Amino acid sequence: MRCNYLFSGLALSAFAYAGPVCPRDDAIKNFIYIVPDGYGPASQTMARDFTSLMNGAKADAPVSISLPADELVIGNVRTCSSDSLITDSAASATAFACGVKTNNGVIALDEDGKPVGSILEAAKLDGLKTGLVVTSRITHATPAGYSAHVPDRDLENTIAEHQIGYSHPMGSVVDILMGGGRCHFLPQSDENSCRNDDIDLLSWANDQGFNTLTDLDGFKALNNGSDAKLPYIGLFNDDHMQYELDREPSKEPALHEMVTTALNSLKEATSSSQKGYFLMIEASRIDHAGHANDAAGHLHEVLEYNKVMDLVRSWINNHPDTIMLSAADHECGGLTLNGFNPLPLKDVSSTTTVLEKKFEAYDGDSPADYLKNTILPAYGITNATEDEIEDLVELKGTGKFGMSLGHMLAERAGVHWSTGDHTAVDVTLFGHAAGKRVLELKGEMAGNWDNTQLPGYIEKTLGVDIKDATKELRKNGVDWVPKTTMAKRDHTHKD
Amino acid sequence: MRCNYLFSGLALSAFAYAGPVCPRDDAIKNFIYIVPDGYGPASQTMARDFTSLMNGAKADAPVSISLPADELVIGNVRTCSSDSLITDSAASATAFACGVKTNNGVIALDEDGKPVGSILEAAKLDGLKTGLVVTSRITHATPAGYSAHVPDRDLENTIAEHQIGYSHPMGSVVDILMGGGRCHFLPQSDENSCRNDDIDLLSWANDQGFNTLTDLDGFKALNNGSDAKLPYIGLFNDDHMQYELDREPSKEPALHEMVTTALNSLKEATSSSQKGYFLMIEASRIDHAGHANDAAGHLHEVLEYNKVMDLVRSWINNHPDTIMLSAADHECGGLTLNGFNPLPLKDVSSTTTVLEKKFEAYDGDSPADYLKNTILPAYGITNATEDEIEDLVELKGTGKFGMSLGHMLAERAGVHWSTGDHTAVDVTLFGHAAGKRVLELKGEMAGNWDNTQLPGYIEKTLGVDIKDATKELRKNGVDWVPKTTMAKRDHTHKD
Repeated sequence: MRCNYLFSGLALSAFAYAGPVCPRDDAIKNFIYIVPDGYGPASQTMARDFTSLMNGAKADAPVSISLPADELVIGNVRTCSSDSLITDSAASATAFACGVKTNNGVIALDEDGKPVGSILEAAKLDGLKTGLVVTSRITHATPAGYSAHVPDRDLENTIAEHQIGYSHPMGSVVDILMGGGRCHFLPQSDENSCRNDDIDLLSWANDQGFNTLTDLDGFKALNNGSDAKLPYIGLFNDDHMQYELDREPSKEPALHEMVTTALNSLKEATSSSQKGYFLMIEASRIDHAGHANDAAGHLHEVLEYNKVMDLVRSWINNHPDTIMLSAADHECGGLTLNGFNPLPLKDVSSTTTVLEKKFEAYDGDSPADYLKNTILPAYGITNATEDEIEDLVELKGTGKFGMSLGHMLAERAGVHWSTGDHTAVDVTLFGHAAGKRVLELKGEMAGNWDNTQLPGYIEKTLGVDIKDATKELRKNGVDWVPKTTMAKRDHTHKD
Repeated sequence: MRCNYLFSGLALSAFAYAGPVCPRDDAIKNFIYIVPDGYGPASQTMARDFTSLMNGAKADAPVSISLPADELVIGNVRTCSSDSLITDSAASATAFACGVKTNNGVIALDEDGKPVGSILEAAKLDGLKTGLVVTSRITHATPAGYSAHVPDRDLENTIAEHQIGYSHPMGSVVDILMGGGRCHFLPQSDENSCRNDDIDLLSWANDQGFNTLTDLDGFKALNNGSDAKLPYIGLFNDDHMQYELDREPSKEPALHEMVTTALNSLKEATSSSQKGYFLMIEASRIDHAGHANDAAGHLHEVLEYNKVMDLVRSWINNHPDTIMLSAADHECGGLTLNGFNPLPLKDVSSTTTVLEKKFEAYDGDSPADYLKNTILPAYGITNATEDEIEDLVELKGTGKFGMSLGHMLAERAGVHWSTGDHTAVDVTLFGHAAGKRVLELKGEMAGNWDNTQLPGYIEKTLGVDIKDATKELRKNGVDWVPKTTMAKRDHTHKD
């Protein structure tokens, strides 16, 4: 591991987990970890100020309010990977799921390519129930870091096999999987498949006793979790689930709805056991909107993340045997609030991703009119100049339209994106526990941490050991890990 | 006050200070508050990664280290002012010194123009000793917020009169003043004066019993504080003190040296008393380098801030009757780390501010050669293209040279500035107390706060009441407050 303790002249941090500082409340049996992917310090300020303005404040007469996440701040987190000051989601997930630094692009293998256990696998091995609830493809880097072991995050078909247990040396380690990425579970004979083989992971899962859901009706039948026996897998989109701003409630559940269902079913499944659960929730697409430099899309993902934080806080207050940490994997987009009046974000009804597709699909004679009358108003812009419209029309077919549209709105809202990639800034750490247990949480965890230090707290709290999972993964050799080289990758993976 | 509790739909934060949550250690008698002016989340990451690289790590093989401030993180702080989502230093100082939101540009008056007491004035009123140690002009917005009451931060001559006690209704409320800004204390007959009257504040102060120091020899004679009887004023530059990167040790002390002197003399002055001290320290010029988009200047100011944090932490560990909070007033520059390899910052020996002056003073025949052979190497750039040099030469005399030079290096170091002004992002909150008292500090203060909430914690800890100071200020009327209108100002004040 490269992220060691190198420093001279100034004081070193205690890199190893420092251990509890107060008498422990042994009643904690459940841990919820929430990842707002690609969410940086400015993301929360933008969402908060936007909410304030939507409630009657003005940019020149602001009101300082709190969103739910604000009330749970306890510190911040460093994010470098083994091979870059700027991490990607794969290396970062490996850090906070497994406690190990690795190269960008690598999923739950150490720098030598050997599989390392995750906190989810350690929990499963110890008899706890487990869940992954995300809005990206379930096979995407963050959930993969908890449940798969591959040298390249793009091996999403293999990741699907690991996640469902088809080729995972510990079998099915995840009791609840919800998100997108359905295509990686379908055999190539299915027209929506992304696989190049005949493996039908959903049928296989069904045979193993999984309840398999592939649409909103299936999700609704879970009845908020009261009719949701473990294990189950719900995949609601072949690709990523829709952005919250674009989401059609008739087609896909919101993240907070999936979280409610997961929590209720995990509670039910562990109610008569001393063993609880580990649940990882990811607000996955904050990051995607950052890559797209889409301030409005980003905003609505961040607001949904805050809704989930509110829900989980209430859950914990009602279930004091549960505790929560939350931190992003990295910032995305280099967002700064240099203007600044986020009110122009309010009239946006579609992300730039959807609007770009729509504009590219237009084959009429008047792209400028279509832009002016249909596309721009959907992105909240009604004051475009003729020059701006002309410039945008010229971007049709270049792949640069969406980004430029994003920048048009950013300028109007006084926000700025410095990149379409990730950046190195520390991300905020949040945590919550019920009653006085929150004092213990703050006493132990308030501070600045390297991302690899976070799972140690979960291990201690749940009384599980990641090393046991690593041992279990390796006990019959590691030939099951794909042999693709651990080539160096940059952090520019775009989704 | 506008920054109230407006929010619907999601949970509200408790805006009022929540009060202690553990039994109090009544032995705390001293409070140190440290302001890294214009320091945002990315400032610390940049300084940390730079330090790591200077210790042998590489951008493609990084090492996660901690700087002193990292080890003291406990949360973050919201910063909006009464009239803008983006605060300036005056409104922010009024918030964290006095607990009151006001308009940008206003010093320790409420929105109606009435004077409000500061935590320093409350401490003085209660019999504690007080100090302000900064690297800007001592009359600048942040120290002014603790010790003067004017509707316009630019009234620095009046601010000087208040600070020294010449026209402050409570008399001399500050026992130690150290920093720059000498010109505001000199009568117009002095060639270095910035005043347009004959008031000689240093002579007046001397008559009142102040030890008045105006150069490094005077500072050295304090013997690190062992020969520094209160009250004293040390002004080491007519304007701001030199940037740390430019500092000539034969002319000016470093911030950490002034802090050592101040702490030793405050300790001595309070050793036989039950009453302790309140000391505000400002690493003032982090902000100025941000306005200038000078990453190297910014970096060295941030490193000096970390040195001060280390020093104060050690001091507190050795003096457990002392406690510390630290937070910036706002971010400056919209700094993001989008590249990212800060190593090119290592060969810089002068700030852009100094180099711009030098280039402007050049009157020879070969500005391009002078630039290439003298200016650029001093800014660590030895690989400028002919085009870049040509572009820079053309900026001579335009006032844009320094900023462009800053951007040249920023590009090479993979960092980005989005503005020459402040931004709205939350800033990091730090705190320290000795031994187990730090658990109490974290239990009470770990979290996200509005900047107006911070002095409440100091009041409780020291057992003083800002309301008493406000009453004292107003008891004989408020005619002593200058009548300049509280015109709305933007946040673009450049220094």
